[in-house]
Amino acid sequence: MTGRRSQIESLSNPLVKRMRLLREKRHRRAEGLFLAEGLRIATEAREAGILPHWLFLAEEGAAHPLANALINATLAAGGEVIDTTPAILSKLSGKDNPQAIVAIYPEPKTALADLDRNAAPIWLVAERLRDPGNLGTMLRTGDAVGAGGLILLGDVTDPYGVEAVRASMGAIFTQRLVQTEWDEFLSWLRAGPAQLVATWLGDDTLDYQAVRYTAPTFVLVGNESQGMPADYAAAADVRVKMPMMGKADSLNAAVAAAVMAYELLNQRRNR
Amino acid sequence: MTGRRSQIESLSNPLVKRMRLLREKRHRRAEGLFLAEGLRIATEAREAGILPHWLFLAEEGAAHPLANALINATLAAGGEVIDTTPAILSKLSGKDNPQAIVAIYPEPKTALADLDRNAAPIWLVAERLRDPGNLGTMLRTGDAVGAGGLILLGDVTDPYGVEAVRASMGAIFTQRLVQTEWDEFLSWLRAGPAQLVATWLGDDTLDYQAVRYTAPTFVLVGNESQGMPADYAAAADVRVKMPMMGKADSLNAAVAAAVMAYELLNQRRNR
Repeated sequence: MTGRRSQIESLSNPLVKRMRLLREKRHRRAEGLFLAEGLRIATEAREAGILPHWLFLAEEGAAHPLANALINATLAAGGEVIDTTPAILSKLSGKDNPQAIVAIYPEPKTALADLDRNAAPIWLVAERLRDPGNLGTMLRTGDAVGAGGLILLGDVTDPYGVEAVRASMGAIFTQRLVQTEWDEFLSWLRAGPAQLVATWLGDDTLDYQAVRYTAPTFVLVGNESQGMPADYAAAADVRVKMPMMGKADSLNAAVAAAVMAYELLNQRRNR
Repeated sequence: MTGRRSQIESLSNPLVKRMRLLREKRHRRAEGLFLAEGLRIATEAREAGILPHWLFLAEEGAAHPLANALINATLAAGGEVIDTTPAILSKLSGKDNPQAIVAIYPEPKTALADLDRNAAPIWLVAERLRDPGNLGTMLRTGDAVGAGGLILLGDVTDPYGVEAVRASMGAIFTQRLVQTEWDEFLSWLRAGPAQLVATWLGDDTLDYQAVRYTAPTFVLVGNESQGMPADYAAAADVRVKMPMMGKADSLNAAVAAAVMAYELLNQRRNR
């Protein structure tokens, strides 16, 4: 299967019109596609074996050596490479100063049953996460600490939105991502080995460094403004808290996940 | 000195028109004022002894017990308390669903010479930080670890913008904040005790847990997309790196600062 290379210069081209709608969640859902910007992220994806269905490039974008590798791999996988204008890239990405590459990928549909929990010692779990920057940052941190992926519970911001994808810095392609509900998650979790650790602001907590974590560890962080429901915390194997020396009573959700994740990694590498 | 309580219901009121301009950086600079939303942040400020010049409340905002304390303290300090409408709060904050309180504060002007470096063991330093969410999150993390404040170098996003203030969750009022340039910072730093630690992606780095940190420690993080200039890293006392187990070569700037900051705090409390 070999793809094709084409040229689009008109802002009213039907494919451009269709692809720009991917900035809206309902169109992403309907199409099963999402949009990523920039050579760096698209190269991360390529190195993870993931190639776009459509690759839009402006002239300067096509000139980079890594862009050549991306173009060739996209064509070899049957994708379409489209030489286009900065104005069209701007229209696709919704940014005044777009990156020179916009790539359109199929959304992977991963279910809990698809996960091999023993494939990684660390898994991040976020409940009703609202901020796409936090979501993308958690994926990026997960990649950094060697986590397996991110499990999203309840009504979360769309992980395939442009801002989350951007904040993930390519980890959207290397971390597994599952969207599910608490009950389903808990059933799945308890059907195999797992230590569920809740970062909890209420009572009955241990200092996060006082716990010996056992893999696979699932780190659960709650909603940015409300934290997690008490029954989620109660269902965890352990509730932990980071020391808070100042006036604030909590950390940013992505920061809390990262501080926990590096503690897990450090315990593993230092023992 | 006692302030006054008034009522504004017209969107074209001159004070409303003037205050809504504070969402733009140049008007914040010109006025020396900034805007914070929400009872929670305004209460943090009050508890730190900082009261607004103007306090705008919708009916539901004024009903909360903590709002009473805020109203009384604002009036006692000579500020103006303004009962207003959700529509005006929406206009002030630029949000469709505004918080029930918007408060206007004077920008503190803090210089390096105003800092007592020995007042805290940890200081965060960020270079050309572009993202207001990252900036606010660093302030929030600084508060959590008992840092003294955040020193901003070079061309940074405005720490008094609405998004940074929001992300700080009130730490904008409890952390010292200095905006300066690298040369001035380095001269000041070397005029007293200080360990400058650069989070560095280049060569000549130590694992961040292999270093014994000595207070006051200054943690330097670089620009989100470019990292820091090599000569900044070279001028540091030590260059450190967190382990990176995945594909990505770096962490989000606010995450890197937090992982470092908790390592410093943990070394202090565990020794």
